[in-house]
Amino acid sequence: MPTTERRYVIRLACPDRTGIVAAIAGFLAEAGGWIVEAAYHTDPETNWFFTRQEVRADSLPFDVAELRERFGAVARGLHAQSDWSVTDTGGRRRVVILVSKEGHCLYDLLGRVQSGELDVDVRAVVGNHTDLAAITRAHGIPFHHVPFPACEPEGKRAAFAQLRQLVDAAKPDAVVLARFMQVLPPELCADWAGKALNIHHSFLPSFVGARPYHQAHRRGVKLIGATCHYVTAELDAGPIVEQDVIRVDHRDSVVDMVRKGRDIEKVVLARGLRAHLESRILLHGNKTVIL
Amino acid sequence: MPTTERRYVIRLACPDRTGIVAAIAGFLAEAGGWIVEAAYHTDPETNWFFTRQEVRADSLPFDVAELRERFGAVARGLHAQSDWSVTDTGGRRRVVILVSKEGHCLYDLLGRVQSGELDVDVRAVVGNHTDLAAITRAHGIPFHHVPFPACEPEGKRAAFAQLRQLVDAAKPDAVVLARFMQVLPPELCADWAGKALNIHHSFLPSFVGARPYHQAHRRGVKLIGATCHYVTAELDAGPIVEQDVIRVDHRDSVVDMVRKGRDIEKVVLARGLRAHLESRILLHGNKTVIL
Amino acid sequence: MPTTERRYVIRLACPDRTGIVAAIAGFLAEAGGWIVEAAYHTDPETNWFFTRQEVRADSLPFDVAELRERFGAVARGLHAQSDWSVTDTGGRRRVVILVSKEGHCLYDLLGRVQSGELDVDVRAVVGNHTDLAAITRAHGIPFHHVPFPACEPEGKRAAFAQLRQLVDAAKPDAVVLARFMQVLPPELCADWAGKALNIHHSFLPSFVGARPYHQAHRRGVKLIGATCHYVTAELDAGPIVEQDVIRVDHRDSVVDMVRKGRDIEKVVLARGLRAHLESRILLHGNKTVIL
Amino acid sequence: MPTTERRYVIRLACPDRTGIVAAIAGFLAEAGGWIVEAAYHTDPETNWFFTRQEVRADSLPFDVAELRERFGAVARGLHAQSDWSVTDTGGRRRVVILVSKEGHCLYDLLGRVQSGELDVDVRAVVGNHTDLAAITRAHGIPFHHVPFPACEPEGKRAAFAQLRQLVDAAKPDAVVLARFMQVLPPELCADWAGKALNIHHSFLPSFVGARPYHQAHRRGVKLIGATCHYVTAELDAGPIVEQDVIRVDHRDSVVDMVRKGRDIEKVVLARGLRAHLESRILLHGNKTVIL
Repeated sequence: MPTTERRYVIRLACPDRTGIVAAIAGFLAEAGGWIVEAAYHTDPETNWFFTRQEVRADSLPFDVAELRERFGAVARGLHAQSDWSVTDTGGRRRVVILVSKEGHCLYDLLGRVQSGELDVDVRAVVGNHTDLAAITRAHGIPFHHVPFPACEPEGKRAAFAQLRQLVDAAKPDAVVLARFMQVLPPELCADWAGKALNIHHSFLPSFVGARPYHQAHRRGVKLIGATCHYVTAELDAGPIVEQDVIRVDHRDSVVDMVRKGRDIEKVVLARGLRAHLESRILLHGNKTVIL
Repeated sequence: MPTTERRYVIRLACPDRTGIVAAIAGFLAEAGGWIVEAAYHTDPETNWFFTRQEVRADSLPFDVAELRERFGAVARGLHAQSDWSVTDTGGRRRVVILVSKEGHCLYDLLGRVQSGELDVDVRAVVGNHTDLAAITRAHGIPFHHVPFPACEPEGKRAAFAQLRQLVDAAKPDAVVLARFMQVLPPELCADWAGKALNIHHSFLPSFVGARPYHQAHRRGVKLIGATCHYVTAELDAGPIVEQDVIRVDHRDSVVDMVRKGRDIEKVVLARGLRAHLESRILLHGNKTVIL
Repeated sequence: MPTTERRYVIRLACPDRTGIVAAIAGFLAEAGGWIVEAAYHTDPETNWFFTRQEVRADSLPFDVAELRERFGAVARGLHAQSDWSVTDTGGRRRVVILVSKEGHCLYDLLGRVQSGELDVDVRAVVGNHTDLAAITRAHGIPFHHVPFPACEPEGKRAAFAQLRQLVDAAKPDAVVLARFMQVLPPELCADWAGKALNIHHSFLPSFVGARPYHQAHRRGVKLIGATCHYVTAELDAGPIVEQDVIRVDHRDSVVDMVRKGRDIEKVVLARGLRAHLESRILLHGNKTVIL
Repeated sequence: MPTTERRYVIRLACPDRTGIVAAIAGFLAEAGGWIVEAAYHTDPETNWFFTRQEVRADSLPFDVAELRERFGAVARGLHAQSDWSVTDTGGRRRVVILVSKEGHCLYDLLGRVQSGELDVDVRAVVGNHTDLAAITRAHGIPFHHVPFPACEPEGKRAAFAQLRQLVDAAKPDAVVLARFMQVLPPELCADWAGKALNIHHSFLPSFVGARPYHQAHRRGVKLIGATCHYVTAELDAGPIVEQDVIRVDHRDSVVDMVRKGRDIEKVVLARGLRAHLESRILLHGNKTVIL
């Protein structure tokens, strides 16, 4: 993201008790750390604590590796298990985008990258159709075509294997399903857990699965929505990151809903991706805490 | 509604064909009718036509009864069956409100009535608890207490019989379930079809049934909603009249959601009721056309 | 727009009186015209009448030229002066887009064109900088660079002359100022009246003129907005076509506001342009009636 | 507010430097303080730091007076001047509401008080008309009538003196101008600085002053708004606490705008008042930081 200065981002979730803020703040203060942003959340139901803090890199006398090591000791003292991270805003985040035929989300993301708003390295775009190859390549980004046969389990398995190879080779910080119309197999969901973001074109949990605008039209709803969520093995049931809606009425056909819906899909996906790349999202069971 | 001048409202739905607008407009023009508001809708899927028109009462040389009779001939010519109506804004609409313990919707409606915004005659408020008796009576409106036993089918049946009697005696144009927590039996749904409006505290079809805010909290949605719909025998599945949403996040407990949700429940119910009383809603299968 | 069938769009504004709907509907019915969409509006303050109707082209026994001639007689009978039009959805609308350095609106429009959502012929993009030349040309659209000197009245005049020539040569149905940062001279505003659409990055009439996000930040507003309006000689004071807002808070710097604002700017511009190209906008003094 | 447990709320603003969070958190941890909610904000432009923290009262071995004294030393060490406070959620907040003729905001607030959502002690309602006396008294709240002569400076001065006396006698934590149509004199603005909240029926800074809906209607905006702000000597120019908008279109007369606007006025005022009473608002020049 367009931070003018390099920062280290600390994220931690642990059982709640007194003194956590003091422990972290004391650790940082002792090292001279200048906190530029800090957010806390306590969940009273589960008695769990969450925090995210941004520290000016130049305020610390050591590098990110040493911060990670030193903070690890603090985290262990707070029984945080593996539920913490220290990231460096200095390096550009790597992203792979999966697409099908519909281009509105891809156009939107590429526009944000081109303007510098989304300061990421799009390593590749992978599509099961070639419709979006030209616009991808016009931005100097590799486009890979991986066709998915409709009804051949064998061919589909092979396609997913190829997809996985292309994605994993890029070592992405985020895998963005930008209206990719294939359902990921459970093992991919597991391996990409917490980094694969999908945009579903409904206000979940309404209208799970195929053709949600058709479902919405049939039910006669007065608002349609879009949901950005982490991909999990259960279809459209992963932790929700962001949602929004737009008003429709009896005059809107399914085609109109598809058109209006696109405008929220792309902005909901972009907001969700931004939160993910800025390390703002902590998972809490099947829910998200966004700090 | 605060119309300065008396109007007749014509509503009609019929199979679409050429010449419908001309037939109606010609009929009105011939009689000197001054149309102050006119709306049309055509559903291309079902090939059905819908219209609503407001005519200045003083522009016609006959009264509403004669307009109804004359327009009936036009409607029959358009094969509208019983799907048309002519109403007079001159008479105040009669409303009965059903409540339980929560008062936000009732307060909101009474405030609108008191200010003249909602120019209706609230004939009665019926509650299965007495919490809202005082505020009702402070407005000079009769409050009836009909207790509903929790687990006695017999007692419940008797309570519904009493409820029906109280409601039907008022000959209401609208029966408003303003957070009335009892599920109406099928025969009441049938008898009050098209005039019983419920406010459900979720963005339907998500979170049908009991405790929708608890369901929403568990799912981790980022927006909560409210839905005003006509009551039908299938729970929370009737034609949707109006919906709206409000943003929530991980900091919001169920109690916070309940509080935030109230602010949309009351406004969604008020908007839905207004559309109903202004004869703006035409049913189209399980959907609404609001003109 | 993606209409499956060709239609003729009739627009008319005239003094209100009884019988207008009948006159128009009667005229169309007599010719066998199948009305697929019809909207009416009466302004009680000015006693003015507005309508827009879509008729299936294949339902009429004559072409658009003859419809225009015949309808002209009806319009004259209604004292509509020049305030009416008949357009044919069969021909693609021609658009010229003016840009500067910021590309979010252009990206958005090109994405809509590429997907077929916006079925227009973008004749040219003209920029006072070259930043957006590549993405324009990647879509096979001519990009013209017209530099505007900062403080030379003479040079600026020459630049506007060149701009006008490029635009007028394209005979556009719409001139879209997609974050074009130059203020059009009065004579261009006059000549392009009713077809030049600007997107202003504030919720007008707040924050007219330069650097509206800076103004918004200084005032501490809790929502920022965007406004699509017709360009007139008075800066940011033309008839408003569409507006929307997005929530901000104390954490948002001017840079954040700029980023968040872009997401509404582009969608507000796209909605406004769509309404314009579908001939939905009728001017009423300095206001718009959108049917 | 409906907190199940008593809490102490600490608010502080001071010049930013490293170690502030550690200083506060260390102080609290040492005393065994259990932080249930904590929020921080740093303004990079002015280099100023803001925090609000909620501590469980029963986690501290001393009472609020001693916490205030001890925290005072911390605050002085951080050069916070007088810009800090420690409040106790245990005592109910005292509120005085000023009204005129329009009752929607008062109804809304009384409904929230009655339901327990707004757990405050409404000491009095003061009106320059008697329209709202009955509903106020139906809630067991004293209503005072203070007539304001239209054009007599002397009489107006006397009325304001009486108003001040009534308000100050109640020692309110908040003075709520719930569509009170009189402009407070500068000395009252000064004396009630930071506790007098007004609801203005426009999206400020648009449409300052009288009849904002008329102004909005004349300009032809597509959204109307409401703004809750602290009262200052300059009319409608105080620090903005909360804003919201609602969509309107060409069909909406001024009367419709007034009606639609009420629904946002009351909710915006209620949200602003809630934030104020929960000690969430810190002033930063003419802006608010809401934590």
